[in-house]
Order: sequence, then structure tokens, then C-alpha cells
Amino acid sequence: MTTENKEKVKIIPLGGLETIGMNITAFECRDSIVIVDCGFAFPEDDMLGIDFVLPDITYLKENKEKVKGIVITHGHEDHIGAIPYVEKEINIPIYATKLTMAIIDRKLEENDLKGKVKRRVMKFGQSANLGDFRVEFIKTNHSIQDAAALAIHSPAGTILHTGDFKVDYTPVNGEAIDLQRFGELGKKGVLALMCDSTNAERSGFTLSEKTVGATFDRIFREHPHSRLIIASFASNVDRVQQIVNTACKYGRKVCLEGRSMINVVGIAADLGYLDVCGDTLIDSDMLDRYPPEKTVLITTGSQGEAMAALSRMAASIHKRVKIIPGDTIVFSSTPIPGNEKAVSYVINELNELGAEVIFQDTHVSGHACQEEIKLIYSLVRPRYAVPIHGERRHLQAHANLAESLGMPRERIFMLHSGDVLEMNDEEAAVVGKVPTGAIFVDGLGIGDVGNIVIRDRQKLSEEGIIIVVMTLDSAAKTVLAGPDIISRGFVYVREAEGLMEEADEVVREALDRVLSENSPDWNRIKTEVRDALGEFVWKRMKRRPMILPILMEVEL
Amino acid sequence: MTTENKEKVKIIPLGGLETIGMNITAFECRDSIVIVDCGFAFPEDDMLGIDFVLPDITYLKENKEKVKGIVITHGHEDHIGAIPYVEKEINIPIYATKLTMAIIDRKLEENDLKGKVKRRVMKFGQSANLGDFRVEFIKTNHSIQDAAALAIHSPAGTILHTGDFKVDYTPVNGEAIDLQRFGELGKKGVLALMCDSTNAERSGFTLSEKTVGATFDRIFREHPHSRLIIASFASNVDRVQQIVNTACKYGRKVCLEGRSMINVVGIAADLGYLDVCGDTLIDSDMLDRYPPEKTVLITTGSQGEAMAALSRMAASIHKRVKIIPGDTIVFSSTPIPGNEKAVSYVINELNELGAEVIFQDTHVSGHACQEEIKLIYSLVRPRYAVPIHGERRHLQAHANLAESLGMPRERIFMLHSGDVLEMNDEEAAVVGKVPTGAIFVDGLGIGDVGNIVIRDRQKLSEEGIIIVVMTLDSAAKTVLAGPDIISRGFVYVREAEGLMEEADEVVREALDRVLSENSPDWNRIKTEVRDALGEFVWKRMKRRPMILPILMEVEL
Repeated sequence: MTTENKEKVKIIPLGGLETIGMNITAFECRDSIVIVDCGFAFPEDDMLGIDFVLPDITYLKENKEKVKGIVITHGHEDHIGAIPYVEKEINIPIYATKLTMAIIDRKLEENDLKGKVKRRVMKFGQSANLGDFRVEFIKTNHSIQDAAALAIHSPAGTILHTGDFKVDYTPVNGEAIDLQRFGELGKKGVLALMCDSTNAERSGFTLSEKTVGATFDRIFREHPHSRLIIASFASNVDRVQQIVNTACKYGRKVCLEGRSMINVVGIAADLGYLDVCGDTLIDSDMLDRYPPEKTVLITTGSQGEAMAALSRMAASIHKRVKIIPGDTIVFSSTPIPGNEKAVSYVINELNELGAEVIFQDTHVSGHACQEEIKLIYSLVRPRYAVPIHGERRHLQAHANLAESLGMPRERIFMLHSGDVLEMNDEEAAVVGKVPTGAIFVDGLGIGDVGNIVIRDRQKLSEEGIIIVVMTLDSAAKTVLAGPDIISRGFVYVREAEGLMEEADEVVREALDRVLSENSPDWNRIKTEVRDALGEFVWKRMKRRPMILPILMEVEL
Repeated sequence: MTTENKEKVKIIPLGGLETIGMNITAFECRDSIVIVDCGFAFPEDDMLGIDFVLPDITYLKENKEKVKGIVITHGHEDHIGAIPYVEKEINIPIYATKLTMAIIDRKLEENDLKGKVKRRVMKFGQSANLGDFRVEFIKTNHSIQDAAALAIHSPAGTILHTGDFKVDYTPVNGEAIDLQRFGELGKKGVLALMCDSTNAERSGFTLSEKTVGATFDRIFREHPHSRLIIASFASNVDRVQQIVNTACKYGRKVCLEGRSMINVVGIAADLGYLDVCGDTLIDSDMLDRYPPEKTVLITTGSQGEAMAALSRMAASIHKRVKIIPGDTIVFSSTPIPGNEKAVSYVINELNELGAEVIFQDTHVSGHACQEEIKLIYSLVRPRYAVPIHGERRHLQAHANLAESLGMPRERIFMLHSGDVLEMNDEEAAVVGKVPTGAIFVDGLGIGDVGNIVIRDRQKLSEEGIIIVVMTLDSAAKTVLAGPDIISRGFVYVREAEGLMEEADEVVREALDRVLSENSPDWNRIKTEVRDALGEFVWKRMKRRPMILPILMEVEL
């Protein structure tokens, strides 16, 4: 460390640390900003009616002239889903590997952005010069092909960002992770390591994708008389490859079900990431021509998603595929936290229809476990550790792991979204905060549903709404029509006739009380009615529905 | 089998097979009915606003004069929760072991049923004569003490019902499961075995409760300078016993947090099921007198329940306990399916406050795994197998297991709620169906919230409601006031002013259109307004809120 080199580089996560999935990080040095990943998040259970969640990019918009490019590590939605939204706000070039870019292209097309965004396809080992940064793509392994780690070279030093990764010494397609380059960069000196924390609580090594192939072989061998239906993630092309290989070996035809499965596999096959022997792949309208035991269906729905192909088969509402006794269904996946019950529901339905369901040894994770994380630290030996990708508990487990390897606690930074971590190899500290947040998307509306609306939906969902409507003579302050009580989502009215009559009485009494005053104003009428009815319903039923008095005024 | 013996016995599960938790089964022979267990279920995610779910007992009410008693296997809510409701409908005697009965007594008291229900406390080995049945209580092990299996002796043969159970050779308190009696009954001949399926998908043996004690010892030893906060199920008194023992050994005071924890531990201690050495247990207002590292808190909230003590501590809203850096929190539990995200949320919050969180080797299941189930089958060697306690997938795994032990498939019955399974040792078949169902309880209302209300809540929760209200002159068919548009849970109005103005326009146009007709009726006005506004909102926003037109009529 020479005293002349006082350059500093900033790491600014704009999402992904509180709202998991929304991965987007800004790197800033001198007058340059590079964005790494650009994902959206799927809504949490309490974000009622929300379709997905976007990151707040105020900071990027305010520093638009500095932003040199968006660099993408791999093609999963939590890393690319927000690209159309961000590109519409700040049009900047995208850098990604071939398969990743092909998936992004589809997204740009759907959003009418085709040809409007600069894009450069990167090979492993290549670098992109982005202002004062040079970003190098390094081969890794993950549950989607063409995943990259990034060496972000800056005047203040090199930051190594693993993206989502695992160490697979025997990948199905392509090369193993480029551990040599990790070692070489480490030897030259790495300022900070930003490493995947997803599996930081799990001991040992993540198994190779190839072990799933061995399970498939066993399942095919042991079920020669069953139709096989295998549910998996659409983007896991290597998984599809292994099913295709096994089907080929056992003389079965393969048929794809589910829009995203057909989409992604199509893209992968076109680009040469999937090798289908001969005429193994058939269209679903050809299925009838083969005996069931000579076919394999690969389908979406491994997470129990209500509208996915497998869920529709299980509910007997799929257009073409009807589950029959003797079918063997394989879940080639584990439930993502939060989806356990939905998956169980589908398994129960399939069992009910007489199908056998298999879900053991049929999946491996795409993320590094503790031993792999330790390996990366040992190769890179960074000055600072900045755990990424995971909830707080995973970042914490990662930090504990880094500390167990001898890294001093004060050089480990568990950041929050919006933190500005500034560093060079003399010092590092969080020096500021930029705006961040989760922007709700509901239908076509972006950001028009906020916390107040969500809170109202929460209340409506739990106890429904009671509307009290009445028309008043504005001059004489007398009731011309109503009060009428209408409820939705509150109680099945035929079962509660007496109650509604009493409620009516309560409202009328409250109304009489206010109207007998000297100069009752509209707000007082509303408040009195709401309070009286609210109290009555609570006392009688221990419920708190939303109560909405509506007054109409007529001038006679 | 002599030809004279043509007696048959019926097994009629009234709940618990589709709606997990609602365990209640009727046994019927000649003119006698015995009920085994009487549980309620907690609501599924899509049962919006529902507090809990009760079984439909129409069949029992219709055959009230036959019902001889309710026999309870153990004191968990999914086996006793519906007792007050059932007792209010058909007042019949309850039979249960000591601790189980004490927990039931508390429930009767809370529901103003104390002294109004006959109850008999049973010892293991004792039998109750219930009409044509004799029901014998047999000692088992489970995650609550005093759990019993039942030998239900009938003129048609003996049915062995395990209840929820595991095989624990080294229980913390009391005896191990009475495997001898299982063997003896088996030797004499058991008609049907109804055995717990909860863990039928899991290979091996469930570990002894004592192994958790060993983990506690290690945690106490390794954290001499931390306050310890241990979250567990309130009803697992043996778990509490082990924490108390370890606290005693390491010289710490134990304090209970959470209403149900204090309740159940109080009952258990009074009855001698919990042995507290000296003055180890202290009240929470005494906590301040001891240094944190000399205390252990045992708390509710191990499932991430929003209102439980641990969740309130994690959210920094607990009245007395504030989490501080250095605190060690132990989850002595695993998340029940569906609670994973809630638990993770609490762990993240605790990590954020600087606490260490431990959740490995801190829990064992209360249910038998595959090897234990096989053991029971080998001791009992029943003529028929009727898997109970579990979702369809678990019953299926159980049935596969029974078949692997040599039981013919046609003697294994995977029932649905309401099925009437009639049997003697010559034949067995489902011969009928009785009414069953899930009755929703919301606040004080039982059964007044049905599927229509739930569907409305669902719609309201996703996109909110738009109300269009107007006052019409009933004679002239002219608009006197409105139409006014009011929305809740739809969109944040300030963000969508233009949209609401357009919506207003759409409604007015629709209204003008209908009113210009010859004799527009009220329903047509409503339909037109609803359709026009619905279409507009879908086109503009791709949302489908509930639209509720309200017309008021004034006679001038």
C-alpha cells in the first residue's frame, strides 16, 4: 500500500438484503457507476394482491450520467427481472454471457425495448471497460448455465463478486468453475469478496448436478411400466438435459409442459446449451401416439404454483394431461421456503388420484455450502468480506464462517440495502445511505399501491367491509333515504339476519342522536355511525370489519 | 373364525383426514358409539380471517342416544380443541388420563362447562365400559406426557388406535411405551390397527427426548456469559423439565414467558409432572435481580407466531424483555409446515439485534418414524391397517410401509372423512358415508362465515373494492346525487387522480345510457355500471377489484 494511492471505491446495494430476490448493487469510483444485476422480488405473503416488487432506483436516476452499464451474473428473475423497468428509466448498455443475454433479450422484446438498448455478449475471461471500472467475467457453476462471477477492477482495487454459485467439479454441460482464476486474482490481491450466502448455514459440500442424473436412471429403471412426469425449474437446462439423456437411454419420448419450460428450453436448444438426441423431443399433441410407459413429461409446477402445469394436472383441470393410477410423478426440486404447504397440497392431490410421488435424491442446490464458501475464501483471501445473497440469518452465518477462517470481525461488513460502503486497502466504512425501497407492481400499476392500500387489503381480507349509506337533505339535515347496510366478506347474511337488523337499529340510533344536535356536520355523522356500529359488532361477534359510512347530499 | 360370530364394528372418521388436525373418529357397534379424540384445526392460508375450524358432528347429533363417551388420547389442541363445542351440542362423559384431563378441565372452565360434564380420569391398564365397547388405555410416548394408545374392544374384535406416538426407550419422565401390551394384544388377535402416519415418510427411528437434554447441556456449557432464551412448545413439559434440570446444574434461574407456557407448566407442576429443584423458577418481575448470564427464559413463539412472546421480543415490543447483543436464542422446535417463513423472519430480526440464534439438534419429533411403525405392526400383526393422522401423502407412505411388511393391499384402508368402514375378521369394506365438513369459527361466530364470504375476502384482499353510490329520484328516474366513487384497498388515490376522474366519466356515461332507455330498472343500472367500470379498470390496470354499485331511492 503506497501513500499515493488514496482512491476509494464504493459498494452500494440497492436491494436484495431486506427484500430477498431484488438483487441490484451499484459500484462507484470517481465518476463511474457500474450496476451488477437487476432483479425483482416475488411478493411476501403480506403484500396482498401484489404481482412483484421492484427496487427503488432513485440513486441511479439522480446519477444517470455516471452509470456506465448493467452487468448481469446469470439469467434468473431475481437477477434480471427489473431490467425492463430500469432500462425504461435510464437507458444503459447491458453486459452478460450468451444464454443470460438470450433470456434478457426475450424480456426486452416483451417490453417493446428490442433494439432500444445496447447489449454486449461476454465470454468467460473477457472484460468490459466501463468508465473507471473493468469488469471481468469468470466461469462459475449454478442451477442455470452460463453463470458468471465478476472481478470488478477499480482504481482502488479489485472486488470479486461471486454471483449465485456452487462448485461443481463434474458439471453436466460446460466447464467446472474457474477456481484457478479465483486463486490467481487472490494472489494478486483482492480488496473485497462479495460471496453468495444462501447456503451458509449448511455444512459440507453441495452435491454435483450429475448425482441427480444417477437418481433419474434408477427411477427410469424401476418404473418401466409407468408414465413419468418430472417437475423441475424451467431454467435448469442441465436438469432437463439429464432427463432427456435418461429418456434416450430407456427409449422414451420427452414432452415439455408449461409455458416457461417450453420457452427456456427452446432458447437453450437454439443456442446449443441443450443436446437432444434424434427425435426424442415431441410436441404435446403427439403424446397420444405413444404408450404412456414410453413417455416422459417435463413440467413446470415444482413449487406448487397454483397456475402451473403440474398443479393443473393434480387438480384434474389440465387440458391435455390426465393423471391416472400408476403414473409416477417426480418432484425434481425442493420447496423454496414459503412454498412447503403448496407443494404438499399438490402431492396430496396426486396421491389421491393414485399416482406415486417421488421426491428423494431428486434435486441438488445451486448454491455453495460451507465447505465451498471456505474454499473460495482460501483461494481469494480478500481484505474485506461483504456477504451477499441471503436473509439476515444467512449473512450472519456467512460472517461467522469468515471469522472462523481468521478474518477479523471489523473487516466483515453485513450491509443493509442503501448502505454506502467506501473502501480502499487502508480502511473501509459505511459512510452514507442512499434511498432504497420496494416498489409494488400490481397489474399494470407501478408504485400506485403503497402501504396504506396494503393495510386496507389486510383488514378487508380478515373481516370484510360493512358499508352504511344514506342520503341527507342538505338544508334540513333530514334523512331522505337509508341508512342502508351492505356488507361484503363479513358474514353470510342469511345466517345472521337478526344481527343485521340489530345493526340497523344501532345505526339509526346513532344517526338520530347526531341529527338532533344543533348543527351536526357530515364528519360527525360519519364518526358517530362508524363508532357505534364498530362497537356493536365487536361486542356481539369479536370482529373488526372495515366500516365505511357514505353520505350523499341532495339539495331539494 | 366361527360362523356364529357375524358381529361387525364400524370405524367412522369425522375429520382429520382432509383437514389436518381436526381429529375425531366414531366407533360404532350394535347400539353403541364411542368417540375417540375431539380436536379442532387451525385455519389454512386461504381461510381468511378464520380463527379455527371445527368438525361437523351432524352424525353424532343424529345418533345422540347411542353415544356413550368421548375418549381422549392426549392433550394437544388437535385432539381436544373441539370438546367445548361438542359438549354444548351433545353432553357426554369424557375419559382421559390425568394430565390430559387437567388440560381439558381448564378448557371446560373457560367455556362455562365446569361441573356440567361427566369426566373420569383413567390410569394406564384401566378400561372404561362404554356400552358394547370396552376401551383400554395403554401407555405410549409423545411430545406431551400421559399420551395413550387405545385398545377398543368390541363384540367384533379389538381395534388398536395408537394416538400420536413415538417409541422412547428413555423418556424424561414416566415409563417407556408399553410394547409388551401391544405384543400381548397382537398375540390374542387384533382386528384393525389405526396407527400414526405423521412421520411415515421418514426413515429410521425418532430420537429420544433425552438427546435434546444433551444438546442443552452443551449450549449452557458453551455460553456461560450469555442470557439464554429458549423457545419451545408450551405443552412439551419434558422439554421444560430438561431445561430446568440443566439450569439447575449450571446455577441459572428459570423464568417463563408467554401465557400458554405459564398455564401448561403450572398445571403440570401442580400434578407432579414437572419437578423443579428448589427455587430455580422465578417470576418475570424478579428477573432484574439476577445478572443476565445467570438466567434462562423459556418462552412461547417457537413457530414465529406474530403475537407470541419471542416474536414480540424480536420486534422490540415485548414489555419486559429487551434483546441485547450477546443474547443466545435457542429454537427448541422445528417449523411446522407453513410456518417456515414466519420463523425465518423472527430469526432475521433476532440476528439484526445482535443475538446468536441456535436451532440445530435442539428438537426431536413426537411422532414415530418408519422403523417404529414397522415395530408396532410386527407386535400387533393386525388383520386390517387403517393409517391415521396425516395428509394423504403420509397415509400413502404408511400404506406402502404396511404393504412392504407383507400386508395385502386390499386389507389396507386409506379412508376419507365421513367414510363408514365396516369390518369383522371375515371381511371389511367402506359401506357408506356420513356428513362431514369444516365449520369456520371467526370471533364468536360459529359457521356464519362460509365459502361465499371467504371468496369475497379473497377478492377484497387481492384488489380491494370500488363502491359506486348514487341517489335516484324513484319517480322521474333522474340522478339526485352522485354517482360518487369510493375505493378501499384498490389504489392510493393521490397517485391515481387522473384514473379516478376517468372512472367517474365511464360511470356517468354508462348511467346516461341506461337512464335514456324507456323503463330502466334498478338491476340494469347496477349491472351496466359494474360492467362498464370493471372493463375500464381491467383495460387500464389489469386489475379486477370488487365493484359494488349502491343505489338509493328518494321519493320526492
